[in-house]
Amino acid sequence: MYEIGFDVGGTNIKVGLLDANFKLVASRSFPFPIGESPEKIASLMAENAREILSEHQLEFSSLSSVGAAIPGSIDPDEKIVIHAHNLRFHNVPFKEMLEKQFPGIPVNMANDASAATLAELHFGALKGCKTAVLLTLGTGVGGGLILDGKVFNGGLGHGVELGHMIMLHGGESCTCGNDGCVESYCSATWIINEGKRLASADPSSFISQSAGGNPDSITAKLVIDAAKRGDDQAIEIFDQYIDYLSDALASLTVLVDPEKIALGGGVSLSGDILYKPLCAAVKRKSYFHAEPTIIPAELGNDAGMTGAAMLATFK
Amino acid sequence: MYEIGFDVGGTNIKVGLLDANFKLVASRSFPFPIGESPEKIASLMAENAREILSEHQLEFSSLSSVGAAIPGSIDPDEKIVIHAHNLRFHNVPFKEMLEKQFPGIPVNMANDASAATLAELHFGALKGCKTAVLLTLGTGVGGGLILDGKVFNGGLGHGVELGHMIMLHGGESCTCGNDGCVESYCSATWIINEGKRLASADPSSFISQSAGGNPDSITAKLVIDAAKRGDDQAIEIFDQYIDYLSDALASLTVLVDPEKIALGGGVSLSGDILYKPLCAAVKRKSYFHAEPTIIPAELGNDAGMTGAAMLATFK
Repeated sequence: MYEIGFDVGGTNIKVGLLDANFKLVASRSFPFPIGESPEKIASLMAENAREILSEHQLEFSSLSSVGAAIPGSIDPDEKIVIHAHNLRFHNVPFKEMLEKQFPGIPVNMANDASAATLAELHFGALKGCKTAVLLTLGTGVGGGLILDGKVFNGGLGHGVELGHMIMLHGGESCTCGNDGCVESYCSATWIINEGKRLASADPSSFISQSAGGNPDSITAKLVIDAAKRGDDQAIEIFDQYIDYLSDALASLTVLVDPEKIALGGGVSLSGDILYKPLCAAVKRKSYFHAEPTIIPAELGNDAGMTGAAMLATFK
Repeated sequence: MYEIGFDVGGTNIKVGLLDANFKLVASRSFPFPIGESPEKIASLMAENAREILSEHQLEFSSLSSVGAAIPGSIDPDEKIVIHAHNLRFHNVPFKEMLEKQFPGIPVNMANDASAATLAELHFGALKGCKTAVLLTLGTGVGGGLILDGKVFNGGLGHGVELGHMIMLHGGESCTCGNDGCVESYCSATWIINEGKRLASADPSSFISQSAGGNPDSITAKLVIDAAKRGDDQAIEIFDQYIDYLSDALASLTVLVDPEKIALGGGVSLSGDILYKPLCAAVKRKSYFHAEPTIIPAELGNDAGMTGAAMLATFK
């Protein structure tokens, strides 16, 4: 038997076909159809699933389950998308809509960070952990907690929102409406904004020149690559970023005392320039002063699809 | 059978005699003997236990276990006090020292906040909870997490240190050596210091007058009582305190999504002036925007002794 795992993003919807061992057999993606109704979106998802199956001479009857990873909050019964701002979904009974498209096949739905955590726990960087943290450093900051060897979905079923811990009282406004959230200081967006600010203020800077003089083309990778090449201004930005990120990880450490912390998202691919000073700072800042194990997540962009496909089996 | 529970503090050592249902039968306390060796302290603890037993016509043979709550970090095997700064204990094999004093009786040792959490879970404000938080607001800030219906001792056995989450990047220096810890903003000490600062700057203030013009006699209760009486300057201090505390509780909420949060320490006895605005602020600041259940802890000063006595049975 096979599973279909969807990773529903505000830009693209990814569709994965996985085998009985949750190995990705094939995947495709299509643009998120902005403006369409959730019913129509569920129908397009089924259509794409049918196509990827037929490319492998398979049909819906080959599926043991379907799962969807959603970038937002899900109700404790995991039937309704309460808020997924990037999808413009608010109180959408999306599980039922998918069930109509996949008659007779079990459908599951979860927050995308929880799904990614499930995949990393069973097949990735957090394999075998009893207590661990996944923190994804992307446009925003998300993540999941592993407690007692399972993905923790919150005591009341709200999930966890690691990016919305408050790390700077009275700090920057966050998209969530609060001030000083981890997301405002530890996302790739923070690095990009600092790079843009520098490039605008100092067109002769290495970062500005690397971006061809166009601040809008600055990425987090461009800033980090400049730091790797020894550019002082880029190093200053990245040092400040590590100072912020180590605060967030020190807080997570004194709360759950994890065996491992895995970092996801593009920033997590920075290598030694990130992990060496980050580990030293977390060791210094956490009350326990124990050497932390901070490692890159392993499943990358496939984590959401893989975790979604695993929901029926591992929940 | 009975148990002895010790709550070892840097000022006093409390000794409790508890019955088979962990009901406190009697308690006494004696000054922490500053300057004495840990062996001598263990011997004094046993002497006091013997006395409290003999007052009830009991002997060591009536004890099923002995437990000690320690204000510091304990090794994962729960044999060694790694650091208890207020006791001046560093790498002290204190369990063994107590075992020598209580031959043949099982001895257990735990962090004092963990012991208090255990007591609140079984007999206090957090009874029956699967997921909950105890935060004690005293000279410092401590507390414990209940996960899966049990006191969580950290993934690597270091415990949890809720007072050392970082809530203000680059903020006030904390006794732990870090900056911006919850303890620096949410302890009773913060309220006292603000009261003293005000009284020194403005001797005509209500707070200064309530303290008889002596800033050193200002307590957190004095400031809170002044706020209850409508003094604007005291209200301003307490509003700021609630703003800080709600940040810490919002962070704990997005991390563990607790059924209940119990507050301990003297500040927790403030009543509606604390809980009403605090609940509203946590609801507004936490990503889930769910109504939090924030309640006073119930066992007060007995929680440490009670939890210590429970260690043999409930660990």
